[in-house]
Amino acid sequence: MKVVDGHKMENIHFKWTKNLKPIEYIDSNETFRIKIPDSSTDQIKEYFTDDDAKNIDATMLDAAVGPFFVNNAEPGDTLKVTINNLETGNFGWSQTLHNFGLLSEEFSDELIIWEIRNNKIRSRRKNFLENMSFDARPFLGIIGTAPQSGEFPMIPPQSFGGNMDNRHLKKGSVLYLPVNVSGALISFADPHALQGDGEVTGTAVETSCEAEITVEVIKNTKTDYPRIVNYENDNISGKFVNTMGINNNIYEAAKIAVREMIKYLENRGFKRDEAYILCSIIGNLKISEIVDVPNFVVTLSMPEL
Amino acid sequence: MKVVDGHKMENIHFKWTKNLKPIEYIDSNETFRIKIPDSSTDQIKEYFTDDDAKNIDATMLDAAVGPFFVNNAEPGDTLKVTINNLETGNFGWSQTLHNFGLLSEEFSDELIIWEIRNNKIRSRRKNFLENMSFDARPFLGIIGTAPQSGEFPMIPPQSFGGNMDNRHLKKGSVLYLPVNVSGALISFADPHALQGDGEVTGTAVETSCEAEITVEVIKNTKTDYPRIVNYENDNISGKFVNTMGINNNIYEAAKIAVREMIKYLENRGFKRDEAYILCSIIGNLKISEIVDVPNFVVTLSMPEL
Repeated sequence: MKVVDGHKMENIHFKWTKNLKPIEYIDSNETFRIKIPDSSTDQIKEYFTDDDAKNIDATMLDAAVGPFFVNNAEPGDTLKVTINNLETGNFGWSQTLHNFGLLSEEFSDELIIWEIRNNKIRSRRKNFLENMSFDARPFLGIIGTAPQSGEFPMIPPQSFGGNMDNRHLKKGSVLYLPVNVSGALISFADPHALQGDGEVTGTAVETSCEAEITVEVIKNTKTDYPRIVNYENDNISGKFVNTMGINNNIYEAAKIAVREMIKYLENRGFKRDEAYILCSIIGNLKISEIVDVPNFVVTLSMPEL
Repeated sequence: MKVVDGHKMENIHFKWTKNLKPIEYIDSNETFRIKIPDSSTDQIKEYFTDDDAKNIDATMLDAAVGPFFVNNAEPGDTLKVTINNLETGNFGWSQTLHNFGLLSEEFSDELIIWEIRNNKIRSRRKNFLENMSFDARPFLGIIGTAPQSGEFPMIPPQSFGGNMDNRHLKKGSVLYLPVNVSGALISFADPHALQGDGEVTGTAVETSCEAEITVEVIKNTKTDYPRIVNYENDNISGKFVNTMGINNNIYEAAKIAVREMIKYLENRGFKRDEAYILCSIIGNLKISEIVDVPNFVVTLSMPEL
């Protein structure tokens, strides 16, 4: 099995563009492993304090490991990405920030380091969420394919995925992404040990991870926006479908997510009006990401019918 | 136990204002029962078709049963409203509409009648979601107190509650509302048998119900926006706190919901920065209501700590 180490600079990138040299070639249905640095690209250490964190290089944030060239993937195909496994590092961090996040203007810069052990997350900062423990729920904040044209920064999510920060991108989840260029040029980044819908401070429990991924090319099937299928959702068992709308307006993003679900249900044989009503009665609109300005992610989540 | 019949015109109203005569006086901690019509105010019958539904009187929508004068409730107090029980009627309905709902411009007017029996919901329309069955999850779309001033239509939710369409207002839930005028003047309406976060078509499974409610006055405790505490959330057991932001801008509504949760957690002894980080890592932003224009409801939901 191929293993790629994203802690090496030659294996990461900081822009979404088709003009990147692939770091690896992968066949459809091939499984591979990736070591993925945290969103600071290994800059934040487990002994860091607030002051240390202020001095990190902001141009080094959200490095993506890749791109991987997927053999036989062509524009108009869909890439099916299965997250077989995720193993986080043994520490993580979260921040409040004065210049990023939903209430950024109301907070100053503070850092908390978390210990991650046996799938439990515990604060390592004195008098700060001390003695509290949370179950880890690891996921990948960033999975994206290359855009057909243009060059985009890492942080805003796009119709081709990228920094979706959607907590449903966890072990066992299957992500469907558009293929816009030959080889798809898919990349992975931004592991999180725990986050709610929204990621309101702008950071989750940021951590490094090792991921095992399988990609599969679905020929001649166009995908406009990312979609996640998983088998457990908010601790509810069963199979779920999650369509996403990504836009710089949350209301428009919600509309896109609903339209995407309607299309999905139509493909499964439902009438358009039936699908719309199903969205209203069993579909849940979640603000998956509200901080990666200028774009937001709204997910419509419902049990598979 | 007092029983009020909201199917009688003298017991319902169509505006939020303090200038309404109370239909009943209730003591703090008193439990009472209310028969609540569906959101069409009994206009839609179980034999109705698309065409019948087009002729209903739109000025009769979302009638609220009340107001109830709660003895000893004064401005600056908080009203604690416990939903002890909800029993729906034996049929419900949903619509797509050309002039209401998230994708209204993309749909025409269609009506589906549902049978509700043994807590199961089934389509009664031929070739339309036929043979599908859903578990009922009844809740009240509307619970509100009177505003301090002004007169407001029923549909847009407000900081004093009203048409929140928040599916967490179900049996066993506890809702905290502001008291803006003497007696609070609380009203109830809009029973739903099933709805997802968002209510995207503009209708849920609309139905009538009989509700058993207990109100309690919490003296000298100010509440700015509604908050729900419940003991099960999305089928996950445990106790949850749900703060709401209500605004004509979804982004601003999300900010309010987060600020409300931060205030709540600060009252429970957390530092402000701790609270903000908790919102990011275990708080889920839900779009509870995206159709009751011009206002939207964003809920931040998290396990009670």
